[in-house]
Amino acid sequence: MNRSDVIVIGAGISGIYAARELERQGKSVVLLEARDRIGGRLLTKEIHKDVEVDLGGQWIGPTQDNMYALVSEYGAEIQPAYFEGKSVISLNNKRKTYKGLIPPLPITSLLSLDRAIKKINRLSRAVVLDAPWKTPNAKKLDGITLENWMSKNIRFKKAKAIFKIAAETVFATSVADISLLHALVYIKSGNDFDCLINVENGAQQDKIAGGAQSLLKLMIEVLNTKVNLNCAVKEIVQNENGVSAICAHQTFYGKKAIVTVPPAALENIDFSPELPINKKQLISRSFMGSAIKCYALYETPFWKEKGLNGMASNNQGYISVTFDNTNPKHRYGIIIGFVVGDKAKEFVNFTEKKQQNLISKELVHLFGEDAARPIKIHSE
Amino acid sequence: MNRSDVIVIGAGISGIYAARELERQGKSVVLLEARDRIGGRLLTKEIHKDVEVDLGGQWIGPTQDNMYALVSEYGAEIQPAYFEGKSVISLNNKRKTYKGLIPPLPITSLLSLDRAIKKINRLSRAVVLDAPWKTPNAKKLDGITLENWMSKNIRFKKAKAIFKIAAETVFATSVADISLLHALVYIKSGNDFDCLINVENGAQQDKIAGGAQSLLKLMIEVLNTKVNLNCAVKEIVQNENGVSAICAHQTFYGKKAIVTVPPAALENIDFSPELPINKKQLISRSFMGSAIKCYALYETPFWKEKGLNGMASNNQGYISVTFDNTNPKHRYGIIIGFVVGDKAKEFVNFTEKKQQNLISKELVHLFGEDAARPIKIHSE
Repeated sequence: MNRSDVIVIGAGISGIYAARELERQGKSVVLLEARDRIGGRLLTKEIHKDVEVDLGGQWIGPTQDNMYALVSEYGAEIQPAYFEGKSVISLNNKRKTYKGLIPPLPITSLLSLDRAIKKINRLSRAVVLDAPWKTPNAKKLDGITLENWMSKNIRFKKAKAIFKIAAETVFATSVADISLLHALVYIKSGNDFDCLINVENGAQQDKIAGGAQSLLKLMIEVLNTKVNLNCAVKEIVQNENGVSAICAHQTFYGKKAIVTVPPAALENIDFSPELPINKKQLISRSFMGSAIKCYALYETPFWKEKGLNGMASNNQGYISVTFDNTNPKHRYGIIIGFVVGDKAKEFVNFTEKKQQNLISKELVHLFGEDAARPIKIHSE
Repeated sequence: MNRSDVIVIGAGISGIYAARELERQGKSVVLLEARDRIGGRLLTKEIHKDVEVDLGGQWIGPTQDNMYALVSEYGAEIQPAYFEGKSVISLNNKRKTYKGLIPPLPITSLLSLDRAIKKINRLSRAVVLDAPWKTPNAKKLDGITLENWMSKNIRFKKAKAIFKIAAETVFATSVADISLLHALVYIKSGNDFDCLINVENGAQQDKIAGGAQSLLKLMIEVLNTKVNLNCAVKEIVQNENGVSAICAHQTFYGKKAIVTVPPAALENIDFSPELPINKKQLISRSFMGSAIKCYALYETPFWKEKGLNGMASNNQGYISVTFDNTNPKHRYGIIIGFVVGDKAKEFVNFTEKKQQNLISKELVHLFGEDAARPIKIHSE
């Protein structure tokens, strides 16, 4: 019989962590995963011989203390980001380089940007993280979009362009798609806006050597929990005997179940008894963002020789932000570029060839002619 | 074999109408319906012996010429709404009655309300109905919420309260939940805001005697198309041989398929080949509104004797709008009240008893002590 104390649904980081904690309390656990792999939103893939990149979540940084503790507990290795040298900024196709955190903008724009970041940080501090709806003025903050707030609080066009690039990369969706309250909750949970956008001392500071997914493999290895892949749960039935999780070819029984799948995937599971109506409404109103990661693989990290750190911000074309993603363990150079928000919705409709041409062209604009000869470009 | 020219999925008004048009062109059609009834969002139900009410869509009005043509073609009967007498308005628990369209507000609020309605009508005229994204400033209009527009364009509190009641009843969701662009598209497709909120010469002008669903029954009766109830389509596969619609116990084959289910239900169907990614994003970002219809059934339409027409607007409590819903064919009186937006999300969590108490209490406030003795209250 497929019987255990707890059925955990979804073998991403939350599901695996839940299984680990339950095992430590002496419970028997079974992990059910719809896909043919563990990892969920963490996905490490070989895009070229011996070159692995993270197509899902990848960075960890200050405030993510639990992640650092996990990494150290399982003996995974931290790879700090490369941030020696200058960054690139291109506004309206005019490219400049600069050192440090402050982009070369007119002083009026810089002050405006600084004021906006300070203001949104200040607003975020009032958020009640455990119950955002209890934040003062929650309804009002939730009734306006981040774009709307920006257009009221950032007067200078260049400041607005930079803020938008940063915000859309952080939130992985158009600033017109999210409410100010959502943005504030996210900002507070990441400490402040600066912390979310920065590399050094920020959310892009470190990676896990071997890829983020490798941590999960280390975690799974030392568990007793059986992982059932290709096991999409169609129905969850709870009654006085416990919980049944019904898959296409098997049914699993447990005293309890923990469901860790993202909201969009919850729509594929029939619950009996049904989920509360407000929960269903919340689920139906959740959506995944639109962000595409583009990896460009080069023979060498040529930008380093030119004194560049591989970071760029760009408000024209498709790639809005880039970072160096080179793995110090091999000779190649890797740039990661993000296409986000409305641009992602357009980009995704192009043929692979057109996507690759656009990316090389934009990388040439940002990093020079050497960027024209990638070994490979991978978008996902 | 379950083989036909066209498989139509969803036996609501769109599916039934599609089947009718296809039959007229000589095609063979099969209609698949997930539920145990036809009708989709049109649902007529007996809440008391011989008393049928519409729990789904019910009104038709000017600009809905195709609906009137259908009603007349199938010999269904139109029942005009009752609007003799005075309407009730209650703002901040202060109740007043008035005759005609203009509520008894301070002149400043009336002017402000009038200006806002004219302004939103004017904005809506610029909408490109066939392609809303081509509307001038579409992105900007889509990036602000209707609530946000209201707070900028309606200065007076009472004017804002009335506008909010009207808008949330029309859009069946909180004004903070929809973009201005969406509101404008909806307004233009209903001609103008006045037309959407009014009874006489407006969207609440007429009903179909016997209930809205009865029209669909008349339409189905004269079709050859076979309707398969309880036949939820799990998967739609299209290849060079045509389309297969796979249900739990049967598979249907057709040259083409027409899918008429609402966006939220599309998430339950696996498409092969997959739907375009932008279409999937659109689906995942669609949501159903939150509106609850409350029917109160009385021995007689007592409000008529008091010179009231049964219409009320209310900005406190749960019911924001009421209409007379009496069927002239029986002696009872029926009031329909709407609970919408954030109030609906709260209301839905109360016990049935608490819901009924709240409704009677609010109807007493609006229509007097006679409202305290309903034969029945039905919310859905």
